[in-house]
Amino acid sequence: MPLTAPLRGVVPPVCTPLDETGEVDTASLARLVEHLVAGGVHGLFALGSTSEVAYLTDEQRAVTLRTVVEAAAGRVPVLAGVIDTTTARVIAHARVAAELGADALVATAPFYTRTHPKEIAGHFRTLHASVDLPLFAYDIPVAVHSKLPASLVRELAEDGTLAGLKDSSGDEGGLRRLLVELGGRDGRTDGPARQFSVLTGSELTVDCALLAGADGVVPGIGNVDPAGYVRLYDAALAGDWALAAKEQERLVALFGMVDVGPEADMGRSSSALGSFKAALRLLGVIGCGDTAFPQIQLGEESVAEVARHLRAAGLAPVR
Amino acid sequence: MPLTAPLRGVVPPVCTPLDETGEVDTASLARLVEHLVAGGVHGLFALGSTSEVAYLTDEQRAVTLRTVVEAAAGRVPVLAGVIDTTTARVIAHARVAAELGADALVATAPFYTRTHPKEIAGHFRTLHASVDLPLFAYDIPVAVHSKLPASLVRELAEDGTLAGLKDSSGDEGGLRRLLVELGGRDGRTDGPARQFSVLTGSELTVDCALLAGADGVVPGIGNVDPAGYVRLYDAALAGDWALAAKEQERLVALFGMVDVGPEADMGRSSSALGSFKAALRLLGVIGCGDTAFPQIQLGEESVAEVARHLRAAGLAPVR
Amino acid sequence: MPLTAPLRGVVPPVCTPLDETGEVDTASLARLVEHLVAGGVHGLFALGSTSEVAYLTDEQRAVTLRTVVEAAAGRVPVLAGVIDTTTARVIAHARVAAELGADALVATAPFYTRTHPKEIAGHFRTLHASVDLPLFAYDIPVAVHSKLPASLVRELAEDGTLAGLKDSSGDEGGLRRLLVELGGRDGRTDGPARQFSVLTGSELTVDCALLAGADGVVPGIGNVDPAGYVRLYDAALAGDWALAAKEQERLVALFGMVDVGPEADMGRSSSALGSFKAALRLLGVIGCGDTAFPQIQLGEESVAEVARHLRAAGLAPVR
Amino acid sequence: MPLTAPLRGVVPPVCTPLDETGEVDTASLARLVEHLVAGGVHGLFALGSTSEVAYLTDEQRAVTLRTVVEAAAGRVPVLAGVIDTTTARVIAHARVAAELGADALVATAPFYTRTHPKEIAGHFRTLHASVDLPLFAYDIPVAVHSKLPASLVRELAEDGTLAGLKDSSGDEGGLRRLLVELGGRDGRTDGPARQFSVLTGSELTVDCALLAGADGVVPGIGNVDPAGYVRLYDAALAGDWALAAKEQERLVALFGMVDVGPEADMGRSSSALGSFKAALRLLGVIGCGDTAFPQIQLGEESVAEVARHLRAAGLAPVR
Repeated sequence: MPLTAPLRGVVPPVCTPLDETGEVDTASLARLVEHLVAGGVHGLFALGSTSEVAYLTDEQRAVTLRTVVEAAAGRVPVLAGVIDTTTARVIAHARVAAELGADALVATAPFYTRTHPKEIAGHFRTLHASVDLPLFAYDIPVAVHSKLPASLVRELAEDGTLAGLKDSSGDEGGLRRLLVELGGRDGRTDGPARQFSVLTGSELTVDCALLAGADGVVPGIGNVDPAGYVRLYDAALAGDWALAAKEQERLVALFGMVDVGPEADMGRSSSALGSFKAALRLLGVIGCGDTAFPQIQLGEESVAEVARHLRAAGLAPVR
Repeated sequence: MPLTAPLRGVVPPVCTPLDETGEVDTASLARLVEHLVAGGVHGLFALGSTSEVAYLTDEQRAVTLRTVVEAAAGRVPVLAGVIDTTTARVIAHARVAAELGADALVATAPFYTRTHPKEIAGHFRTLHASVDLPLFAYDIPVAVHSKLPASLVRELAEDGTLAGLKDSSGDEGGLRRLLVELGGRDGRTDGPARQFSVLTGSELTVDCALLAGADGVVPGIGNVDPAGYVRLYDAALAGDWALAAKEQERLVALFGMVDVGPEADMGRSSSALGSFKAALRLLGVIGCGDTAFPQIQLGEESVAEVARHLRAAGLAPVR
Repeated sequence: MPLTAPLRGVVPPVCTPLDETGEVDTASLARLVEHLVAGGVHGLFALGSTSEVAYLTDEQRAVTLRTVVEAAAGRVPVLAGVIDTTTARVIAHARVAAELGADALVATAPFYTRTHPKEIAGHFRTLHASVDLPLFAYDIPVAVHSKLPASLVRELAEDGTLAGLKDSSGDEGGLRRLLVELGGRDGRTDGPARQFSVLTGSELTVDCALLAGADGVVPGIGNVDPAGYVRLYDAALAGDWALAAKEQERLVALFGMVDVGPEADMGRSSSALGSFKAALRLLGVIGCGDTAFPQIQLGEESVAEVARHLRAAGLAPVR
Repeated sequence: MPLTAPLRGVVPPVCTPLDETGEVDTASLARLVEHLVAGGVHGLFALGSTSEVAYLTDEQRAVTLRTVVEAAAGRVPVLAGVIDTTTARVIAHARVAAELGADALVATAPFYTRTHPKEIAGHFRTLHASVDLPLFAYDIPVAVHSKLPASLVRELAEDGTLAGLKDSSGDEGGLRRLLVELGGRDGRTDGPARQFSVLTGSELTVDCALLAGADGVVPGIGNVDPAGYVRLYDAALAGDWALAAKEQERLVALFGMVDVGPEADMGRSSSALGSFKAALRLLGVIGCGDTAFPQIQLGEESVAEVARHLRAAGLAPVR
């Protein structure tokens, strides 16, 4: 589904189910897409960080994206992460994504390298010139270890390089300043409606981001409870902020599942991704909860804790 | 005014006006307190980071706190920052603050040293046992370079060590999780009303923090426009979130004044503090806009830019 | 030239010359290899950070490695960087490197992801089990944003996973502790001679690292003056530390070329790589001094400054 | 003993022994000074980070410095740390230090605040103009969270503001560049002998620093084994670098004591300081091994481990 207007709403970063051998489980992935579309989401973000894109070979990335595009079947737009260290490598991914039917691209600043903001600008501009799809900048300092300057985002928004921003920086104050400077949302500020889509990855404060004028959210735990985020979004659209906050609070409690797995034995990122996948398995959506190697897997006790979080949030495990 | 219940509302960190020789200008400081109380604020935070506490000698700190307490005259509670590297030094400041009539203390984790969370817990417990005043933890990683773990804050809230938290960490997701865990706000969650006061220092997203259940805000730029923050707070209390957001957006635009002063020539912290003080001078509240040595002062062009921001926000300079 | 014993000596990370279109200039690369071998180096590290590996497509990486292996012609061993985000992607590079004739592999910890030390251990063990070549761990926090714990390096050295370490962490104290714990060098400590090769990437303190027991060095600026580093190494081997220090000091002065290019206009990494390539072009070794996109290129003034540094170090530009 | 020439040699940061009530144990401190002077050290650095200066009240600082000055009795110069957040507070400490007989001052950049290099320059210049004692800049990013730029150190060395640098940054490459730029050491470089004293705090690579042209060392573990560092220094002066390295290696092994105390239960800084003090108690130099509150104390097992390290280094515990 081509993006014809600013993307709005709930756009989960789609988990990539793996089988016991570590290969992409396309049947589970197709079921996950159904689960998300049935939950009412407004778009799908394949091959993002939550999709474990950095763990997937080029072949696995292609299988994943093809599966998501086919399962989505034009009902919602599919954004494809094109995650690699620098421009030439990112363009290679972008060409594949375009061939596979992605509706938009999501790219980070270069990483591994140390790259100046002027060089980052060149990176996005050349990427946009090379592949004719709407381009979202993915601001994720925890992964790439630089923050996109607000002035750079504005410059690239204004010259048409970027169609939007996926902000996973956690810098809510900076995001608010950017939103005020971009202006144009829903009549609260002067000027024409904004054509630039601002999506937050801060899944614990989505009510706040929407109140602040963001267009949507890319919630990792939206894999587990897409309908919850859609209810939150609808409440916000309706101006019922108390209801939005109440839904957010339920989702915050559900998110507590990411703390399973003692930090001494595995990384927090692995336990978070593992908890999402364990929840999807418990809910009967995917077949196997494994995360990609070399991530350490959750133990039985941790999975039981995930199940407790599901039940407390009103989501009944089926196994 | 003793704190008899959880502190709520707008509690600006009071700027410390200096004269041309660098000494505390008590007359200006008293006028600033009047400006804030007249604006409707619910408390005053003296000797915080925005007060340039780290630049003041012990004598200057005493003069400052005495002036604020006297000017407040019991109309609103006065919180006193007791900022120093470790426990023994902080206790010395706390004893002085108690003698000078502070209603509560605000202390950070130890800094300069590298201190384990268990040691930080001991720090706050011993401080609380040593001086009989309500104690707020001041979570400000940008200054002390450690983040208070949420589990530590909860532990110290539950055992009565802490009366509240002033969160300047910028970690809005973590704060949301803490608020959900603490529970008890305004009937939206079960259990008794929360006795623990959560104040945010994130002055650009106050509507969001209040929607998330925070009790109040400690806004640096609230020195310049206290009435604006009070309107924001009142709108939020009334459940008029659209109005709260609109007021916040005006304040975000006003906050743009902190960017005056090219980064090549002075630090961003100095330009931010300098812009607040320049604004207060332009508004006729204080006599001199100088920040403490060794901070570099704003130039004429920067002050003119501050004036433009004031006018754009509907605050007319008087000089 | 297979590695049959611990690698020792000067092992430059070979720059990757590009032509004006950004493609690998294989003729220049072959000349560079001759320049290095003629300078007396003991090995070549292709596809490292200084080789701009993160900017090269898979095809460009293959062309580069093939060219270096062929030009080296068995005179010195060729180490190949296999730089990618996680294990599966690194193994894919490692298989290509083995096919192309690399004598050893150099791999970092996972990056982009957040990976626990236990997971990093699994990463190196699986990589080693998958491709039968000596494996060096590449500790480069500035690129991957984690530091390999010394205990992990020792564990992987002792179980035979790692043949060596390339330490670009800049943590000389930590490296000294590791060297003392590994023991075995040149009769100064008890036990058998160490089979594990410790190479430092700290090119400004090579005399120090050799005095501390390191086996060799991987100097970026060794591209420009390989003979200088070989003299330094030989002086150290001969126990003439004053001479080693004097040679190091000349190379430190030469290294000052990396500061060309004002930081306001380009990144420091780009100016450093650009200065190495400009120097190689001025010395007549390579045809074009361009760095890979999106890096910004040095201006004329900066190139003139590089020429001044060359002359001051006794290296005469030929153009 | 006034500093009449560049300070050279071994200048330990003197530990501050405390009694069981947490007060300064002046008798133990005097014995420690004797231990150090008897070991042959060339100066004493009181009130540094290893002295736990950040934990001491102003009164305790004064008692400590007075005791060190009296015990030193003019046999070696006494440098006094004047550690506080900003200029005015540092000057207050400096005046006390001058009155108490310090021979030189050691000051960091401002901390807690965010301070621009130009402001840091003003800080040091005003401090130097205010108190007439030789001034050393203390570069310790782990405590103050900024690094002194080499260009700033050179500027302040050249204009006479600074008499020297105590470099605890761990940036050995940067230090080497500074030393080459400063020039002047022992005839290896042109120009007059350097009047500026460069002392390293990197106690595990002192042989390296001396080879690189540093003038001396400020080793924390020099409290425990001052004679070892003096032997290292003498070997380096004599050009016997192999002997210097061997002595350094013994001290590196001794330094392993800092790892006592599992990180889960206390901070690494606390365990390091605790191990130094435990060693001094075991050696009969001081009466009580306690570190200052809120640091957690070493347990019995950790103290036993310290004893093992002492014995392995040839230092026999007396209790």
